[in-house]
Amino acid sequence: MNDAVDASSPFDPAEFAAALAQEHVADIVERLNAEPLERASAVLSAMPLERAAEVLDEPGLEAAADLVESQPSERAITLLKALSADQRADIFRHLGAPARERLLSQLDAETRTSLVQLLSYPENTAGSIMTTEFVSVPSSWTVGETLRHIRAVESTRETIYAIYVLNPKTKALIKAVSLRRLIVSEPHVSVLSIAPPRRPVTVSPFADREEVARLISKYDLLAVPVVSRGGHVLGIVTVDDIIDAIVEENTEDVQKFGGMEALDAPYMDIGFFEMIQKRAGWLCVLFVSEMLTASAMQHFQDELQKAIVLTLFIPLIMSSGGNSGSQATSLLIRAIALREMRLRDWWRVALRELPTGLTLGAILGLLGIMRIALWQKLGLFDYGEHWLLIACTVGAALVGIVTFGSLVGSMLPFILKRIGFDPASASAPFVATLVDVSGLVIYFSIALVFLRGTLL
Amino acid sequence: MNDAVDASSPFDPAEFAAALAQEHVADIVERLNAEPLERASAVLSAMPLERAAEVLDEPGLEAAADLVESQPSERAITLLKALSADQRADIFRHLGAPARERLLSQLDAETRTSLVQLLSYPENTAGSIMTTEFVSVPSSWTVGETLRHIRAVESTRETIYAIYVLNPKTKALIKAVSLRRLIVSEPHVSVLSIAPPRRPVTVSPFADREEVARLISKYDLLAVPVVSRGGHVLGIVTVDDIIDAIVEENTEDVQKFGGMEALDAPYMDIGFFEMIQKRAGWLCVLFVSEMLTASAMQHFQDELQKAIVLTLFIPLIMSSGGNSGSQATSLLIRAIALREMRLRDWWRVALRELPTGLTLGAILGLLGIMRIALWQKLGLFDYGEHWLLIACTVGAALVGIVTFGSLVGSMLPFILKRIGFDPASASAPFVATLVDVSGLVIYFSIALVFLRGTLL
Repeated sequence: MNDAVDASSPFDPAEFAAALAQEHVADIVERLNAEPLERASAVLSAMPLERAAEVLDEPGLEAAADLVESQPSERAITLLKALSADQRADIFRHLGAPARERLLSQLDAETRTSLVQLLSYPENTAGSIMTTEFVSVPSSWTVGETLRHIRAVESTRETIYAIYVLNPKTKALIKAVSLRRLIVSEPHVSVLSIAPPRRPVTVSPFADREEVARLISKYDLLAVPVVSRGGHVLGIVTVDDIIDAIVEENTEDVQKFGGMEALDAPYMDIGFFEMIQKRAGWLCVLFVSEMLTASAMQHFQDELQKAIVLTLFIPLIMSSGGNSGSQATSLLIRAIALREMRLRDWWRVALRELPTGLTLGAILGLLGIMRIALWQKLGLFDYGEHWLLIACTVGAALVGIVTFGSLVGSMLPFILKRIGFDPASASAPFVATLVDVSGLVIYFSIALVFLRGTLL
Repeated sequence: MNDAVDASSPFDPAEFAAALAQEHVADIVERLNAEPLERASAVLSAMPLERAAEVLDEPGLEAAADLVESQPSERAITLLKALSADQRADIFRHLGAPARERLLSQLDAETRTSLVQLLSYPENTAGSIMTTEFVSVPSSWTVGETLRHIRAVESTRETIYAIYVLNPKTKALIKAVSLRRLIVSEPHVSVLSIAPPRRPVTVSPFADREEVARLISKYDLLAVPVVSRGGHVLGIVTVDDIIDAIVEENTEDVQKFGGMEALDAPYMDIGFFEMIQKRAGWLCVLFVSEMLTASAMQHFQDELQKAIVLTLFIPLIMSSGGNSGSQATSLLIRAIALREMRLRDWWRVALRELPTGLTLGAILGLLGIMRIALWQKLGLFDYGEHWLLIACTVGAALVGIVTFGSLVGSMLPFILKRIGFDPASASAPFVATLVDVSGLVIYFSIALVFLRGTLL
């Protein structure tokens, strides 16, 4: 990544900054992310103020809070004032308490008030990711007046592609108009007359960012206004913020599905102990639950003693249950997240998973019976005189366990949602653990039926 | 979803269509998706042509191809002509061969040529999701001329927020200008003079849509131009198309991580046999691989016979390896997808996972030893006179297996990428299966060391 900087020559931040002058701000951010904090801070100091503000305004900049803190106090304040409101709030969220207090006290009253308001919204809500720099006009204005206003305020607005039309008296939101509509309309007509007939799509500041993403994606919006109960526009969430949020949510979902707490930073930036902490929690919970398998097997120890051949297939049978469960869970997590399915649809899913599980179990069961018969006939292993009964036990157990796995795996996201958890907490290891204990019980129960009087 | 239609009254498509007249087109699509094809088709026929085209233009409409096919031939052609090029191509991709031929032959030559070109790009490439309706102007124009042109062609363009400035002679792309820059600039200046200094971000028509998503997200673009080798703009991919693509890719990633082939339709819309097909493939592959566990156990059958107590902990130990592997895989799949990590960084990851795995294994190992000691001391189960040795065997095996699981799980995505597969094919069940066989071997080898001369 450092191809523009020769590692052997002494590091010159001014030179580095000058080399970046023509680059896209997103590329500068990528380069700064690859540098240690000290160097990145020196480069930022060497940049013209406006450019430095652009860099700090990028959500992709990893150590933004540390970088602001490392700048001289006066420059830090000037930079903070130049940032968009959402990015400023995000940087404050990551500042240490002393720096936060110090910088907050030096900001002008207006910026401070808006900042404190943004910081008051819980993480991952619309309020916490919105910005307050949007364009709004009274409904009494014409298209021409609106365009003139847009030209005047453009440089201080996050987006000018959506314009919010307010009631001149109450300041409540009436309509949203696109810049596209504005520029193709006659200048003298009322801005209200060119607005679409329906009422605008809005969200509450407390809406989850996933809900905001769903609305922006569904209605193909470039921005969605965040509206108070009284109908006032508090801010907007723009499409580029929401793409970042969607990508972040995905990473969290995959990590959670892998059976761990979601990391909130790139893999290489997480400290050793934090990594252990994020992973050990679920591993221990799963381990303790899985201890039930030892208890189950202790319960069947007499059977095990008599028919040691049964143990040979325990891993095979248990993993098949876990695998089918994992498939079903991944399907339902996404179906629920995409709103294809509501809580009340659980029985439809169960009715689908039952025949699906039976069929998949039958396929694996046949494979299992063939494997045992083949090894026996080819003389690769001797399962004893009752090998056919053993093969049937394994086959029947597979049907039972795969069906059970599919049912448990598909119902788990519904159950989690019902009791108020995120359906995406239903990880593959979680399902496998749930299925393992019951899988053992199913296997031994079937063995007792098939093999009583012969092996057992 | 059908709250506007009384189920007991006879279904009147015209009434249904009229009731939807004021709704947002995305909401109409949601309602039509919930109706059977016949009804949806009747409603579409009852809509004014322009509205029907708007509905068909939504990527969220599930049975778009069937709906077009069900319209009278002439209306179908008029509707197809009114659609945006990318959605038209998408509908053609889903049409049956006879309908495709029939409709293609009725289209005018220009539309047909553009359509055939779009259909020639492989699925999920930039070419296959781009649209050809963009705004381009020669670099010799002024801002005022450009704005007049935009006003004239606005209604036939997918987006007007990005304007592509072409070399008047070669028609090759020189710059991209935002509408935002245009409307705040003086009408008489050259459009080239207000363009940003850097060259525009572009993609090849054969770039993967994930790459397009990464660029749009990184550079906060509203659209990215798809450019031929000769530098000509073939089309554009807009941010709303890319959000749909990102959401779809996520769904595929979660389903693949769950150990199945990705579905290309909502859960409830997949037929029974297709569902079996998507799930049985991986289940069978995993099952056959997992058969190696039976072989491994057959290999250790003498040890099993002598120390049946060892079997009690097989599921516990194996699942711990699978769980730690699943965590590591989920971490690395995302880190690679987000380009936090390149192929050559594999050794850094291995160096991190080694101590992480050892620590996590030690934690679980301690828990395991405590569990055995506790049951023994409390008299819940008698592990025999050598219980302490057994506990140490289990503890040491856990350290070995969790470390091994973390290493295998973290390296698997790298290996898959190296041999040309999608790192996201590394599913949780896949890792668990890989770890299971070696886990058994590790367990029994440690047991041989610890218990030789006593139990074995």
